[in-house]
Amino acid sequence: MKVAIVGASGYAGGELVRLLLHHSAAEVTCVTSRKLAGTPLDQIHPQLKGFTDLKFTNPETDAIDADVAFLAVPHTVAMTYAGKLLSRGIKVVDLSADYRLPKEVFEKVYGVPHTDFFKAPYGIPEIHRKDCLNAKFVSNPGCFPTGATLAAAPLAQLAHTVIFDSKTGVSGAGDNPSATTHYPNVGDNVGPYKWTSHRHLAEMKQELAFLGSKANVYFTPHLVPVNRGILTTAHILLNEPLEQKEVEKLYRDFYKNEYFVRYQKPILAAVRGSNFCDVMVESEGTRVVAISAIDNLVKGASGQAIQNMNLMCGYKENDGLTGAGLLP
Amino acid sequence: MKVAIVGASGYAGGELVRLLLHHSAAEVTCVTSRKLAGTPLDQIHPQLKGFTDLKFTNPETDAIDADVAFLAVPHTVAMTYAGKLLSRGIKVVDLSADYRLPKEVFEKVYGVPHTDFFKAPYGIPEIHRKDCLNAKFVSNPGCFPTGATLAAAPLAQLAHTVIFDSKTGVSGAGDNPSATTHYPNVGDNVGPYKWTSHRHLAEMKQELAFLGSKANVYFTPHLVPVNRGILTTAHILLNEPLEQKEVEKLYRDFYKNEYFVRYQKPILAAVRGSNFCDVMVESEGTRVVAISAIDNLVKGASGQAIQNMNLMCGYKENDGLTGAGLLP
Amino acid sequence: MKVAIVGASGYAGGELVRLLLHHSAAEVTCVTSRKLAGTPLDQIHPQLKGFTDLKFTNPETDAIDADVAFLAVPHTVAMTYAGKLLSRGIKVVDLSADYRLPKEVFEKVYGVPHTDFFKAPYGIPEIHRKDCLNAKFVSNPGCFPTGATLAAAPLAQLAHTVIFDSKTGVSGAGDNPSATTHYPNVGDNVGPYKWTSHRHLAEMKQELAFLGSKANVYFTPHLVPVNRGILTTAHILLNEPLEQKEVEKLYRDFYKNEYFVRYQKPILAAVRGSNFCDVMVESEGTRVVAISAIDNLVKGASGQAIQNMNLMCGYKENDGLTGAGLLP
Amino acid sequence: MKVAIVGASGYAGGELVRLLLHHSAAEVTCVTSRKLAGTPLDQIHPQLKGFTDLKFTNPETDAIDADVAFLAVPHTVAMTYAGKLLSRGIKVVDLSADYRLPKEVFEKVYGVPHTDFFKAPYGIPEIHRKDCLNAKFVSNPGCFPTGATLAAAPLAQLAHTVIFDSKTGVSGAGDNPSATTHYPNVGDNVGPYKWTSHRHLAEMKQELAFLGSKANVYFTPHLVPVNRGILTTAHILLNEPLEQKEVEKLYRDFYKNEYFVRYQKPILAAVRGSNFCDVMVESEGTRVVAISAIDNLVKGASGQAIQNMNLMCGYKENDGLTGAGLLP
Repeated sequence: MKVAIVGASGYAGGELVRLLLHHSAAEVTCVTSRKLAGTPLDQIHPQLKGFTDLKFTNPETDAIDADVAFLAVPHTVAMTYAGKLLSRGIKVVDLSADYRLPKEVFEKVYGVPHTDFFKAPYGIPEIHRKDCLNAKFVSNPGCFPTGATLAAAPLAQLAHTVIFDSKTGVSGAGDNPSATTHYPNVGDNVGPYKWTSHRHLAEMKQELAFLGSKANVYFTPHLVPVNRGILTTAHILLNEPLEQKEVEKLYRDFYKNEYFVRYQKPILAAVRGSNFCDVMVESEGTRVVAISAIDNLVKGASGQAIQNMNLMCGYKENDGLTGAGLLP
Repeated sequence: MKVAIVGASGYAGGELVRLLLHHSAAEVTCVTSRKLAGTPLDQIHPQLKGFTDLKFTNPETDAIDADVAFLAVPHTVAMTYAGKLLSRGIKVVDLSADYRLPKEVFEKVYGVPHTDFFKAPYGIPEIHRKDCLNAKFVSNPGCFPTGATLAAAPLAQLAHTVIFDSKTGVSGAGDNPSATTHYPNVGDNVGPYKWTSHRHLAEMKQELAFLGSKANVYFTPHLVPVNRGILTTAHILLNEPLEQKEVEKLYRDFYKNEYFVRYQKPILAAVRGSNFCDVMVESEGTRVVAISAIDNLVKGASGQAIQNMNLMCGYKENDGLTGAGLLP
Repeated sequence: MKVAIVGASGYAGGELVRLLLHHSAAEVTCVTSRKLAGTPLDQIHPQLKGFTDLKFTNPETDAIDADVAFLAVPHTVAMTYAGKLLSRGIKVVDLSADYRLPKEVFEKVYGVPHTDFFKAPYGIPEIHRKDCLNAKFVSNPGCFPTGATLAAAPLAQLAHTVIFDSKTGVSGAGDNPSATTHYPNVGDNVGPYKWTSHRHLAEMKQELAFLGSKANVYFTPHLVPVNRGILTTAHILLNEPLEQKEVEKLYRDFYKNEYFVRYQKPILAAVRGSNFCDVMVESEGTRVVAISAIDNLVKGASGQAIQNMNLMCGYKENDGLTGAGLLP
Repeated sequence: MKVAIVGASGYAGGELVRLLLHHSAAEVTCVTSRKLAGTPLDQIHPQLKGFTDLKFTNPETDAIDADVAFLAVPHTVAMTYAGKLLSRGIKVVDLSADYRLPKEVFEKVYGVPHTDFFKAPYGIPEIHRKDCLNAKFVSNPGCFPTGATLAAAPLAQLAHTVIFDSKTGVSGAGDNPSATTHYPNVGDNVGPYKWTSHRHLAEMKQELAFLGSKANVYFTPHLVPVNRGILTTAHILLNEPLEQKEVEKLYRDFYKNEYFVRYQKPILAAVRGSNFCDVMVESEGTRVVAISAIDNLVKGASGQAIQNMNLMCGYKENDGLTGAGLLP
């Protein structure tokens, strides 16, 4: 099966190629970048040297020939590709924000018009597996909403307030240097940002509501001096107190058939480079702390995108995704 | 004025000496360590080489001759020194937990009997200045409660729920190696610990109650790959919504006469090595995020202890504490 | 093929299991630890949760049933296992220092008698492949000597002086906490240690001499705030000046058939978690700088051990080792 | 005494203000920035909030009224200010590279013409104190050459080869974001750059030659995941072997009257934020390893500049510079 990656120069693109090296059937045959057309892929992603002779092509002038395409381009750009690829019979996983929210919510949150909207499954398979199975198009969730939703899902219906306090590695900001990612601003520091207004909050609210929650949902992200990984601390206030045994059982039951969600103490290294989400919960009555750990570039982006591809194309859900985390 | 530091081999001890180099009147004349008696101070604290010829003395066998003594020993040890020093007319600032809580609360939280209890001012001068002024004894607060209390104080009476999510540098764990502080367990990681049961929670509850709060108070600390500093994110749920202008005004007013509390975006580097607490607040209606940054070894320990000493002994409150933060 | 790991509780043990998950034929069936006998493997190596039900067994009382055994125990301990396992027809890869040096050199460098010495191939396959092929026993090299030897090998015969200045991640110190690995001693710091007397120097001298070098060889290691990886800067002084083109050609030729050595700018992340050694060279006449990057736990330990196992047992040399580096 | 800082928006500017807060006589009265004219200084340097009401002025249109001016502007810019300020009777310390090298060397190394050259003392006071005393103008050395020169000076005349392998914190790259300083490119990594051709090499050669050395001098810098500090490992090859006692004595004697150079194990934290250079040496015969640690922004820039100002203006050499390092 031929795979194209539209926008392959960033971290998500590099991870898609790295992970698909281990897939039983998928082969990356096309990687695009407007700016880098003609450049060898391994010049931008040196970890891939020896594995590939691919060169970037120009997605606007060179043909995209593939069975599946991943869109790893910024929001508002993905919407210019999705429809065209689908109309040519190419299945699409969109890693951007363009199809994660209803049209009007998207336009409000992102402050831009949506020029080619259609409804799409929201690709957290643990929540929406049925919709992703055999789908032609899946919208891949944001990194924060993935970790947050999986942390709170089992208690969604029992909570009146859910506060997500997330700590993210810097690769989540992409490969483009800025004051925010300047080492001396990050090293030996912890940087809260968008204290009450991060765009990913809309996805969290949507998912908890989908799960039947009536809780108020809040979100404050922080940048930590870490390359990869998101640790999300969900402070959950319950309508009725629950004992430790009870909440733990809710979590174990909720995820008992999930390959990628493990009930254990969340440690970023234990999921580093892998598609796992480790989650654990502790109750003190009406307040519960649930914490999840994911690799923002894998379960939070490229790995989950491949998980969705597997569901869409009939492969084992963990095909290409059976690597263990890199600890330490 | 002669100053003794009982238990001077740890980080708090090193910081006391470093900061007191700049004090107008205090001179450290005695540093003790049972294990290191006879060893030059600068062998353990190499940053002090050239500043001092002091050697550690044995606090059990050598006389402690001083006007003021800092107790920088573990809890349960401080209580064996405090009374004796006071009875000899030596003023005492205790950096341990021994006198921060009522006897019965202390015994419950720390699981040990208190063998020499008496009441003491709780030395956050911004909250308890009057009690510290000219006091003979002050109990210096914990690092987490200092940052947390200062983050939430202005809203204490208006909140029904306060959740402190703290991110602390590793020096807070002391200079004793353990699995928790082993570099490969900390680097590129974020480690939640004591998710619902950290001992410092009792101090936070006590202080918010002192400020007239009826809020439920929760606390979850995290270890981040940082040497110094605590960033505390206070998720505050209000009884009635407040606009941004209103909460900001509350904070500015509350701290308008405080030298060491600055209303600005909290950045660990901006307070690194200094006694400042930077705090800022953002409202989204009934939920407010207030974040504070302190250096856990300075405003969270040694600097605040000197601030208390200044109040106790009649010096300017910021004597020895006018250094700016080390950014980057 | 059944694989035993003697001493599986440390980082090298964890990596052996992680990497062998991807091997075509090898299956880890026995993991030992004297202290942890009975404990599930994934309790110590949480990244492996979901992949294994193995429990640690006691190597002194429980049978070691395997076709191949890895010794991941400290020096002087390996020599108590190697002979016994070999006599039972089990092939052995020893990751300790016990068989890397001639008996008298070992005893001098390590200051202990060798109680069961025999000669063994030194398992850098790029240098000693023929000796490792079908061998029953291979001594796996130290992490520093692997990176250093590969950095300098192509110029070994042309140099009169080779100075290795290495920068290593902290996982090289093992999983046992100490002052050296205490986060506040490592974070935001660079720590030289054993400036002129590191034990691994003897291996470097041995390997350069094997390659025909008459150079004086020096070595100074430094600890850097990094989890994994060794960057070795080889400062090489040549007998005769060489132009950039010439040295570069020497390197490209020397490694042209080597899967695991790539001629490109060394970046720790590009080899992180992988068995690659990236190396590059720059000449300024009679002085050349050659720099190599490896993952100390993979090419510097467990990955190279599997590479050796593959050679000993007739598998493709890269079986189980085709993962790309984890960048960023 | 009134002090102006031309180009005060960068790290060196921030440090000059921070350090001069503790000076007995100097007061910063003018801070310039072309881009930020009108902006409060503490908005760019939040660590200074509460200490200053200064605003940036435009150095091209606003008067610079001062007794001493620090030039903290890029090379080629400093030469447009130095002469003008001097002609107005303002003493000048130039932190740029413009006056560190002879005209022709500067023009070759920096590839630009020098439009206003004159000779200036090279401000490492430990080497050129006499020339700096009462000088009207001093050229402040580069960060790398300061650490390197102080590491090798006592052996300059006895060596035939000196190889400087430096590890620098990222603040040395300035406050301007770039791919080089992008956190994911630096975190958990060690990055060699300009392996044989760094511009600072010319200063090192000049200084060792000044000290009577005939050694070949080489230099390879590395970027490490550290905010501040340079650790320089000098690999020194001697003409004749020296014992440990002998080299140690040479170092102790060479620096015996120097306040800012301490003979002790170099640890970045021990000099962090301070003007000290810690240096130590270890011999193995004809090869000696000498290692120095400095704070690149203090002894490597702003602190040394103030040290020079003190010499130029008749203050105690350590006025304003008596802070101890921030460890940990």
